[in-house]
Amino acid sequence: MRHLLGTKGLTRDEAILILDTAEEMAATQQREVRKLPTLRGKTVVNLFFEDSTRTRISFEAAAKRLSADVINFSAKGSSVSKGESLKDTAQTLQAIGADGVVIRHPASGAPERLATSGWIDAGVLNAGDGTHEHPTQALLDAFTMRRRLFGEASRGRDLDGVSVVIVGDIAHSRVARSNLWLLDTLGAKVSFVAPETLIPFGSRGWPVTIHHSLDEALRAERPDVVMMLRIQSERMHAAFFPNEREYARNWGLDDPRVAGLSDRAIIMHPGPMNRGLEISSGAADSPRSTVLEQVANGVSVRMAALYLLLSGERGVSE
Amino acid sequence: MRHLLGTKGLTRDEAILILDTAEEMAATQQREVRKLPTLRGKTVVNLFFEDSTRTRISFEAAAKRLSADVINFSAKGSSVSKGESLKDTAQTLQAIGADGVVIRHPASGAPERLATSGWIDAGVLNAGDGTHEHPTQALLDAFTMRRRLFGEASRGRDLDGVSVVIVGDIAHSRVARSNLWLLDTLGAKVSFVAPETLIPFGSRGWPVTIHHSLDEALRAERPDVVMMLRIQSERMHAAFFPNEREYARNWGLDDPRVAGLSDRAIIMHPGPMNRGLEISSGAADSPRSTVLEQVANGVSVRMAALYLLLSGERGVSE
Amino acid sequence: MRHLLGTKGLTRDEAILILDTAEEMAATQQREVRKLPTLRGKTVVNLFFEDSTRTRISFEAAAKRLSADVINFSAKGSSVSKGESLKDTAQTLQAIGADGVVIRHPASGAPERLATSGWIDAGVLNAGDGTHEHPTQALLDAFTMRRRLFGEASRGRDLDGVSVVIVGDIAHSRVARSNLWLLDTLGAKVSFVAPETLIPFGSRGWPVTIHHSLDEALRAERPDVVMMLRIQSERMHAAFFPNEREYARNWGLDDPRVAGLSDRAIIMHPGPMNRGLEISSGAADSPRSTVLEQVANGVSVRMAALYLLLSGERGVSE
Repeated sequence: MRHLLGTKGLTRDEAILILDTAEEMAATQQREVRKLPTLRGKTVVNLFFEDSTRTRISFEAAAKRLSADVINFSAKGSSVSKGESLKDTAQTLQAIGADGVVIRHPASGAPERLATSGWIDAGVLNAGDGTHEHPTQALLDAFTMRRRLFGEASRGRDLDGVSVVIVGDIAHSRVARSNLWLLDTLGAKVSFVAPETLIPFGSRGWPVTIHHSLDEALRAERPDVVMMLRIQSERMHAAFFPNEREYARNWGLDDPRVAGLSDRAIIMHPGPMNRGLEISSGAADSPRSTVLEQVANGVSVRMAALYLLLSGERGVSE
Repeated sequence: MRHLLGTKGLTRDEAILILDTAEEMAATQQREVRKLPTLRGKTVVNLFFEDSTRTRISFEAAAKRLSADVINFSAKGSSVSKGESLKDTAQTLQAIGADGVVIRHPASGAPERLATSGWIDAGVLNAGDGTHEHPTQALLDAFTMRRRLFGEASRGRDLDGVSVVIVGDIAHSRVARSNLWLLDTLGAKVSFVAPETLIPFGSRGWPVTIHHSLDEALRAERPDVVMMLRIQSERMHAAFFPNEREYARNWGLDDPRVAGLSDRAIIMHPGPMNRGLEISSGAADSPRSTVLEQVANGVSVRMAALYLLLSGERGVSE
Repeated sequence: MRHLLGTKGLTRDEAILILDTAEEMAATQQREVRKLPTLRGKTVVNLFFEDSTRTRISFEAAAKRLSADVINFSAKGSSVSKGESLKDTAQTLQAIGADGVVIRHPASGAPERLATSGWIDAGVLNAGDGTHEHPTQALLDAFTMRRRLFGEASRGRDLDGVSVVIVGDIAHSRVARSNLWLLDTLGAKVSFVAPETLIPFGSRGWPVTIHHSLDEALRAERPDVVMMLRIQSERMHAAFFPNEREYARNWGLDDPRVAGLSDRAIIMHPGPMNRGLEISSGAADSPRSTVLEQVANGVSVRMAALYLLLSGERGVSE
């Protein structure tokens, strides 16, 4: 692998390689000295055109555990505000010898542009682009599902037959999209649940079942995984958005809905949660909830991705 | 020690252990290669909800000299502005495997909340919370007093019988509070000097003598240490605040007052100073002044605290 | 060398020592593991009072490749906004044991003030001060010229007889000034080309030929190097500034002008470029253009400067 731009292009074998490598990384993190020498002398740049402390910190911790040098580059206060283009920025990163670039960008497709433009030799990791993809989030979600549902038997296997229900503002969610492509590749059955106005245009033809009622979806799909998306407060008062009360009543995961889940079902959320809106505190804090594991697994998955992309010889694409 | 939340809870033995360890750290900083391998593989997060470059840099230098990986997390532009709670932030830090969290927060009690909530296994170091505590400042002040007043005889000893006069806006000062608790524990005699409106409510019962006139305090207490607090410019025009001229005249350390000090008396200030307001340039630059030593000692004291809190095995509280 | 404050004070031997050391640094960057242990245990502070991500990242990468600990200090959100003076800041850096300070400041002369005030023992590297100097930019430019014009024969030599034409807003350009002093020291012949209003007052007596027409300059000087300066958009609508169209027509490097250059002539630009304004896309992307090499060479030159200034024993000035 050369870049990690999305889960859409990922093969089943590549996905499982990342998940299995993440298992190995997770094991090293239990040791007394967690630092691996693998990326010593490599430079990883966190190129964030959007604020996201959680994701930046997770990548930073992952890269440092692998002994890489990390340089943070926030677009705020950068030359970008002096009109520098993505191309100019890329060439700067190339020139300083970046081996890996972790990019977060408000425009869908910016990471792919960076990777395929020829401006840069570095491996590019998409840390979220517009409403397009957020592949490490989907990979850490899949990693979490595999561990929770299959335990010791996780290694090497996919998610064949697992039923996953994803609930919320699908239209604006790169997390939902990245999960859909990856889960489909890994053999899971995916459903989206949202009010009509929050389902993306153009989703016909996607390998997904669409529901507009959460209760109906839970009944029909018998999910192993219920994944609640975060409601972005800046969207909450838009015309297309139900009011908060209506949202919580129809599409929030509340305690009675949790009670109706199958015994093995788990509850996921990419965080941070709006308790009382898309998820009740009971659901968030229940033993079914994997919210904290997801964040912890994020470091292992990002270590795996950085390792697989950057540990080879410099300048040699595989 | 598991956390360093304040000096109020610190025993005499713990305080002396930190000061003596800081002496050892200071010695290592004279070597050609100053870096110690002690915290290699550990992750220290600087979690700053308030700007304080001086304190952040001091902790960052201390952690890096001990070979820790340091991740800076400024609350500006973080998920905190998206409504993430301290709990969510804590859980993120826990999930990425933070071993130590250095927290600065405008709310009194936030570090204690972080440490005792069960959200996190990391050692918590309070780098200043509201008007509550700033323990490493008090420890570096005590370290500076011990060195200046007792020289080679410092190691192992407390501040028994030392007279300390602290002058300024006591009401809003966490530095004054942290110094009071620590100095009292170490056997010093502490006085506060301030206009009536800048003495904290509820200070009756504290182990401190209160004066409203600096001249009277200097006469009555014969101090070994005069500690001037910084006047925060944002408070200067509040109704409870004397005007600047009146302040300098009554509560500023000017050259005639310095001339009246005993021979061994030292002048302290946490910096940055308002020259001509709470302290004259003559006082600030006199050989009695320890202002620069205080900052330098800050790195040694913070190395000691990080070492004592974080060098044990992970997850094992002592 | 103790500090690098400008190219004006640099001797020919010092300049060639930096350029030759940069050649060695560039060679190490071709290795599989690029990291050198040279500055292990040293602390380099990037003290930026002006935003400049490109320069900061270049210095940060250079320092990390030499194994220094790097602490970034941006003046935004720092105590500077609380009224702390450069002196207070310097004393903080001294106190935390900074070995090197890379300073960017809007005021001409601030780095020299920092270096010569006695506030600090650290080596000071000027990363751009007002309209005064930007010495590492001039050194990377000279390094690039030497490599391009003399190839393998570069090492040890100066730029004797090389003709350099620098075009643009000379009046506000520290890059033009630093280049002039260095190029003159290295034996090159320098010309400035700009409208009358963009030539600095007081430039009479400088070792430079001044032209007001680019076409005339190219004809008269037969340059080996054409260096185009960036037009700062904030200046573009000032009274003294020609309008954009007029600027591009009279002082922009367009394709016909490139076609008239001698065979070996190269095109330089400190970046980021305003394509279509001071430089055409054809010129920017032509094989004569060294824009990307300049940025890459920046890391080598900064490694060399950091190495020469900081690798000696601490506290011993040479």
